Amino acid sequence: MTSGKRFVLSVKSLVLDNEGRCLLLKRSMSSKGNPGKWDLPGGKMDDCECFDEALIREVCEETGLDISMTGLVGSAESESETRKIVYLIMESRCLSGSQVRLSDEHDEYAWVERRELGSMDVVPQLRSVVNEYAERGD
Amino acid sequence: MTSGKRFVLSVKSLVLDNEGRCLLLKRSMSSKGNPGKWDLPGGKMDDCECFDEALIREVCEETGLDISMTGLVGSAESESETRKIVYLIMESRCLSGSQVRLSDEHDEYAWVERRELGSMDVVPQLRSVVNEYAERGD
Repeated sequence: MTSGKRFVLSVKSLVLDNEGRCLLLKRSMSSKGNPGKWDLPGGKMDDCECFDEALIREVCEETGLDISMTGLVGSAESESETRKIVYLIMESRCLSGSQVRLSDEHDEYAWVERRELGSMDVVPQLRSVVNEYAERGD
Repeated sequence: MTSGKRFVLSVKSLVLDNEGRCLLLKRSMSSKGNPGKWDLPGGKMDDCECFDEALIREVCEETGLDISMTGLVGSAESESETRKIVYLIMESRCLSGSQVRLSDEHDEYAWVERRELGSMDVVPQLRSVVNEYAERGD
């Protein structure tokens, strides 16, 4: 029943600005997985990291934004040839401005109205949780 | 918008035996939270632990069972006076037998048919995810 593949945890965030818009990042065309698709900031936890510190660090590295977590959005999973990835998706708010500074992992960013999230070409493993979040509305 | 409370991550498991029954643990009557309610094995991650190692360690401490994770069940959250807890709930299978050895955190255990999970008096923060799992069937 088990594949023997290792599980890793990736913590992602739906980051909201002061107007309640959500940040999406477009994966670089040189990404190994899902190039050109819209993704959420965040990533795999390093050893010895609390999940909240990991998320704050990853979001800052990928966007330059300081955030504060506000709650849970949901969870998702995917599988590669070598491992299984479990995603924990949190909601966060920007602590200071919404000026994004991208890393070389992403080519573009967009602040999207929550109800419009479902129309974006999001990475397949997060599509369901992002669509549910959009439909829950505000 | 934010309460300033720290978030902590708790990893729980729906452990299945060879017949597909699910393990529930009854919280000790001396527990500070939800005494006498049915809970899932697992708990908060220690620093420097991968989430899969944390879950395997916690389940072994609470039940004596060796498990292997098979996939994601879902996520949930709760809030205490001092912090917010995010739960990641995984599905696992027993690797060897289903003989449970309880710790002093629990007074009782039960192997429950999946479709019967919804009728158990489960801790409130996990009720929704456990009920959805029961309804998805097998």
